[in-house]
Amino acid sequence: VKLLFIGDVVGRPGRQAVQALVPRLRSELGLDYVVANGENSAGGAGITSKTAAELFAAGVDVITTGDHVWDQKEAAQLLETEPRVLRPLNYPPGVPGRGSCLVRQEGKPPLAVINAQGRTFMPALENPFLLVPPEVERLRQETPIILVDFHAEATSEKIAFGRLLDGRVSAVIGTHTHVPTADEQIFPGGTAYLTDAGFTGPQESVLGREIAPVLRRFLTQCPQRFEVARNRVMLLGALIEVDPATGRAVSIRRIAEPWAVESAP
Amino acid sequence: VKLLFIGDVVGRPGRQAVQALVPRLRSELGLDYVVANGENSAGGAGITSKTAAELFAAGVDVITTGDHVWDQKEAAQLLETEPRVLRPLNYPPGVPGRGSCLVRQEGKPPLAVINAQGRTFMPALENPFLLVPPEVERLRQETPIILVDFHAEATSEKIAFGRLLDGRVSAVIGTHTHVPTADEQIFPGGTAYLTDAGFTGPQESVLGREIAPVLRRFLTQCPQRFEVARNRVMLLGALIEVDPATGRAVSIRRIAEPWAVESAP
Amino acid sequence: VKLLFIGDVVGRPGRQAVQALVPRLRSELGLDYVVANGENSAGGAGITSKTAAELFAAGVDVITTGDHVWDQKEAAQLLETEPRVLRPLNYPPGVPGRGSCLVRQEGKPPLAVINAQGRTFMPALENPFLLVPPEVERLRQETPIILVDFHAEATSEKIAFGRLLDGRVSAVIGTHTHVPTADEQIFPGGTAYLTDAGFTGPQESVLGREIAPVLRRFLTQCPQRFEVARNRVMLLGALIEVDPATGRAVSIRRIAEPWAVESAP
Amino acid sequence: VKLLFIGDVVGRPGRQAVQALVPRLRSELGLDYVVANGENSAGGAGITSKTAAELFAAGVDVITTGDHVWDQKEAAQLLETEPRVLRPLNYPPGVPGRGSCLVRQEGKPPLAVINAQGRTFMPALENPFLLVPPEVERLRQETPIILVDFHAEATSEKIAFGRLLDGRVSAVIGTHTHVPTADEQIFPGGTAYLTDAGFTGPQESVLGREIAPVLRRFLTQCPQRFEVARNRVMLLGALIEVDPATGRAVSIRRIAEPWAVESAP
Ligand SMILES: [Fe+2]
Ligand SMILES: [Fe+2]
Ligand SMILES: [Fe+2]
Ligand SMILES: [Fe+2]
Ligand SMILES: [Fe+2]
Ligand SMILES: [Fe+2]
Ligand SMILES: [Fe+2]
Ligand SMILES: [Fe+2]
Repeated sequence: VKLLFIGDVVGRPGRQAVQALVPRLRSELGLDYVVANGENSAGGAGITSKTAAELFAAGVDVITTGDHVWDQKEAAQLLETEPRVLRPLNYPPGVPGRGSCLVRQEGKPPLAVINAQGRTFMPALENPFLLVPPEVERLRQETPIILVDFHAEATSEKIAFGRLLDGRVSAVIGTHTHVPTADEQIFPGGTAYLTDAGFTGPQESVLGREIAPVLRRFLTQCPQRFEVARNRVMLLGALIEVDPATGRAVSIRRIAEPWAVESAP
Repeated sequence: VKLLFIGDVVGRPGRQAVQALVPRLRSELGLDYVVANGENSAGGAGITSKTAAELFAAGVDVITTGDHVWDQKEAAQLLETEPRVLRPLNYPPGVPGRGSCLVRQEGKPPLAVINAQGRTFMPALENPFLLVPPEVERLRQETPIILVDFHAEATSEKIAFGRLLDGRVSAVIGTHTHVPTADEQIFPGGTAYLTDAGFTGPQESVLGREIAPVLRRFLTQCPQRFEVARNRVMLLGALIEVDPATGRAVSIRRIAEPWAVESAP
Repeated sequence: VKLLFIGDVVGRPGRQAVQALVPRLRSELGLDYVVANGENSAGGAGITSKTAAELFAAGVDVITTGDHVWDQKEAAQLLETEPRVLRPLNYPPGVPGRGSCLVRQEGKPPLAVINAQGRTFMPALENPFLLVPPEVERLRQETPIILVDFHAEATSEKIAFGRLLDGRVSAVIGTHTHVPTADEQIFPGGTAYLTDAGFTGPQESVLGREIAPVLRRFLTQCPQRFEVARNRVMLLGALIEVDPATGRAVSIRRIAEPWAVESAP
Repeated sequence: VKLLFIGDVVGRPGRQAVQALVPRLRSELGLDYVVANGENSAGGAGITSKTAAELFAAGVDVITTGDHVWDQKEAAQLLETEPRVLRPLNYPPGVPGRGSCLVRQEGKPPLAVINAQGRTFMPALENPFLLVPPEVERLRQETPIILVDFHAEATSEKIAFGRLLDGRVSAVIGTHTHVPTADEQIFPGGTAYLTDAGFTGPQESVLGREIAPVLRRFLTQCPQRFEVARNRVMLLGALIEVDPATGRAVSIRRIAEPWAVESAP
C-alpha cells in the first residue's frame, strides 16, 4: 500500500499545488491514499469547509491539523460534520472533532489516520504519550495500516513519540516546523519515521509567509501582518510504502515536487 | 574554498567519528577548513579542554558551541585561553570568551567564523539580529569568507536570521535541534543556508542519548539520567564551496558519513 | 513628594474607577503625581488616544504600558505624538515611542518615569538589566525622583531588577500579573519596591475578564472570547512618599479602593 | 477548624523558622492543623527524609511539594514510604508518591489535603482542571474540610483553578512564586483563596537565595551558584478558619511572622 503524506498546506498557493500535483502523483507513484495537513490551508492560518473541500477534490483522503486548527471560526462546525478532517486527538474531552479516522477506498485495505500534538513549547494539551497507544490498539482491530501525524515543535519529543509507537503503527510523520528534515528512516520495529514533512506552498518565504515582515518582527518585536508568500511553490511530504498484511513500512522517501515559480497574487 | 561544517558532536562516539573521518574527508573532499559545533562533546553536555583538543587534533579548525557551553566547569577558562573555541556572540558584555574568530591556513584565504544563538524557546541572550550584522561588517574587512553557526530552536528564527545575512556572509548553518534538515539552498544574495546540520554521534538514539530514559521522561515527567547512546554512529554536517574572491557560496550539500555500527561502551 | 501608582487599568470599568477615584485621592492623600499602567485600558487589550485621554483627564500624569501596548492599531501613532504615554524602554532601536519621560507640575519637583519589560516567559526584548541603569543616570541629571514600572511575569526577575536599581531610583513597582503582592518594602538603598501593583477594574473576574470563558479555556484549550468583567470594581496600586532632596523613598503602602459593586454592561 | 498553611520552606533558615514558630503559633492561634510546602526545604532545592522529619517534629501535619520535588535523589523513596509528604497529584500514572492524603488529629474532624501543579510556564503534567475535581469528590466522602496547595506560576491559571473548585473545597492556596499576594478572599461558594502564600525563609534575598548571584545571572545569562540567603528570616503563609460542618471557609488572613534578623551561616 502506498501512502503520500503532504506537509502543512499553506494558503492558496499550497492548495493550488495540491490540486495540480496530487492527481498526477496519484498515478505516477501508484498512490493508494493521500493524507495532508491542512492547518494553514485558509490564508495561512486555519482551515475552512471551502479549503477542506478543495483538498478533498484534489484527491486527499484525510486532512490532519494542529495548533492552528481553531484560527478560522467555522472550524468547530467543520470538525463536527466532516469525519475526514481531524484535530489533534489529545484535546480534552468535550472538544469538537475527532483525532482519528478510518478510510477505505474500494478494493484497497483500509487506512487509519491519527493526529496528535506535542506539548514542548506548545499548549498544554492532554498527554499524547498516554492517549495515543490505546487509540492505536483500538484501530488495529480494524486495520494494521496506521499513519500518525504528530504535530510538534521539539525534535526530542517527536523522535521519542516515534520510538514509542515503533512496531505499532506504519508511520509517524512530524509536522508544524514547516522545514523538511532529512532523517527519514524505518525504525527497528517497522515504523517509518520522519521528524518533519516540511510545508506545501511558497518556499521563497519564512515558513510560507513573506520574508520582510517576519524579519521586521525579529528586528522590532512589534506585530506585523504576515501575508502568504508567492514564489517557488512546492509540494513537500513523504511517500511511505506499507506491507498490507503486517502494517510494517517497507520504505519511506521524501517528496519535494515543484509546482510554480511564481503564483498569482 | 571548501568548508566542512560538522553538526553538534555528541560525547565520545561523536569525537571518535570526527577523529576517524575528518582526516579522510579532508583529502577526499579537498577541504580547506573544518568547523565543528562542540557544545555536546564532553559526555553529551558541554566542552572541556580535553574534548576540544581531540577535535583540533582531528583537523577541526574552529569549534562553535551553544546553550550547553557552560555545562562543564572549565568552559570559562577554555574560552578565555583558546580563541578558536567560540561561544555565542550575543552573550552580554563581560562574559568570558568570544563569538567570532579568524583563522588562516598557510596558502589559503582566511576564514571568519561567527557563532550566535537564537532566543525563541531559549534563554534571553542579547539580540542576534542587531549584534551580528556589525560583526559581519567588521570581519569583512579581513575576509569575504564568513561562516555563521546559528544555534537556535525555532525554524522561523533560523530562516529569518539566514535571510537577514543573505549577501553578507558565505553560509548560515543552523545547529541545536540535532536533526538534519533537507532545506539546503543558496539564497538569492549568495549565502548558503541550512536550517540544521544535525548531530555527529550515535543516531540510534534521541538526539544522541539512549532512547529508553528519554521515553521515560516523556511518560513520567520525572528526571532521568540520559546516557550517551552507542549505535549507528555518524558524522552529519554540510559541505559548502565558496568563491574566494567574492565570498559567495557556489554550492552546499549535506554530509552524512557512517562511522561505526556500534561504539564501545 | 507623594506618588500614586495605579496598576493595569482594565477596560471601561477600570477607566471609570480612575475617573471617579483619582480626583478624590489626589486631595485626600495629598498626591503630587499619579502614574497609571494603561496597557489594558481599551476593552481590556491595548490603549487608544481616547482611553489615554480619559486617564489624563482624570488626573493621571503619565501612562505606562507593557506587552499589550500594540493591541490597538492606533497605538504607534499615540506613542509618537504623546510623550506622556510610554512603552517599555527595552524595545529595539527604531520602534515608535519612548520608554521614559519627565513631567513637572508647577511648584513641584519634577518626576521621571521609566517603563521597562521583563523577558522571562515574555517576548525577547532587549536586556532591561543593561539598558535601564544608563537611562537612570541620564534622568538623574534632571531629578532624583524616579519611578520605574517594571512590567514582568517572573517574581525572580522582578525582585532582581528592583535590587539592581536599589539606591538609584525612588521606586520600582511591578505590573503585568494583575494580582497585588504583599511584599511592599523599602530596600536598604532607599528604593521602594512592590512586585506587583495588581490591576484596576472588576475584581470578580480572572485578571479583569469574565470567569467562565477563562475556565473554559483551561478546560478545553480552545480559544474563547474574554469579555471584560463587571463586578467588584476597585482601584489597586501603591502610594509612595519620596524625599524630594534625595529621591529616597520614605514609605510605601498598597492602595485598594473600591469603586462599584457592579458596573454598567 | 483552624488551618495554618505555610509557604515554601527554603533551606535551613526556613526549617528553623518553622521549628521555632509553629509550636508557638499552634497555641497562640489555636491551630488544629498545619500544612507546609516543603519543596525547597533541603538546601533550597528538594526535600529529604531529614528535612521532612524536622518539619513534622515542629508540628507540621502534611507536607506538600511542587516542581522541585525530585531535586534530591531520595525523594522517590520518601514519597513512597511517608503518606504525609505529597507530590503534585497530576503526575502521570506510575510515578512514585501520592497527590492527596487524609489526616486526623484525635478529637478533631479529619483534614484532606490535595497538592496539584499548574502547567502554564511549567512542565507538561497531566491536566489538573480535569484530575482534581474527581479527587475532591472522593475525599468529600471522608471529610468536608479540604485544603488544596496549587503550585503554579501564572496568576490566570491559579485564579481559574481556585474558581473551578469554589464551593467544593475549603481553601485553595497557591505556592511557587515565593512572593505573597494580597488577594486573600473567600469566593462566593465558600472557598478561601490566596494566589500565593509566599515563602518561609530569608526574605533579604531573591526568593530565598543570595541576591548577588541571581543578579549576575540576569546580567550575564551564565550559570551561577545560588546559595540560600540568611537575613530577615520570616514564616509566611495563611490562616484559614473552616466551618467543620460544611467545610466552608469562614475567614482567611495572611501570616507573616518574623523569626530572625540573621540566621547562622
Ligand atoms: Fe502548527
Ligand atoms: Fe503549520
Ligand atoms: Fe544546543
Ligand atoms: Fe547540541
Ligand atoms: Fe501585561
Ligand atoms: Fe496588564
Ligand atoms: Fe516551585
Ligand atoms: Fe518553591
